Amino acid sequence: MKARVHVMLKNGVLDPQGEAVRHALGALGFEGVEGVRQGKVIELELADGTSEDTIRDMCEKLLANTVIESYRIEVL
Amino acid sequence: MKARVHVMLKNGVLDPQGEAVRHALGALGFEGVEGVRQGKVIELELADGTSEDTIRDMCEKLLANTVIESYRIEVL
Repeated sequence: MKARVHVMLKNGVLDPQGEAVRHALGALGFEGVEGVRQGKVIELELADGTSEDTIRDMCEKLLANTVIESYRIEVL
Repeated sequence: MKARVHVMLKNGVLDPQGEAVRHALGALGFEGVEGVRQGKVIELELADGTSEDTIRDMCEKLLANTVIESYRIEVL
């Protein structure tokens, strides 16, 4: 089975990488870019029958820093 | 309007970051993790009416390195 985990910085946490992308888009002539946030996607190839609880455990222990990041699990 | 761009390494391109995550999950005792690929998500806050073509242009010029990465655009 496959699962996808999306990890984004929480709202209110400064995102310098996103800001850099916003500036670069402006410099390239793209107008109207009001905000950019950058996050991670992690695609996992797991043994069949792995529960969503196990994936949540992976997120809490390794994949996301829950102090500043939120995550969303999508089982494919 | 909001758009989300997913950028992943193409199949066949070595993903050391994903490999590191796979090893770390194994070391933490999670079994059955057969593969991990890590990519980026970029959330864009754009002026209303920005066309998907413009977003594709942003991907080609800045957001993705199309030699080794593929991207997917999702307008929210």
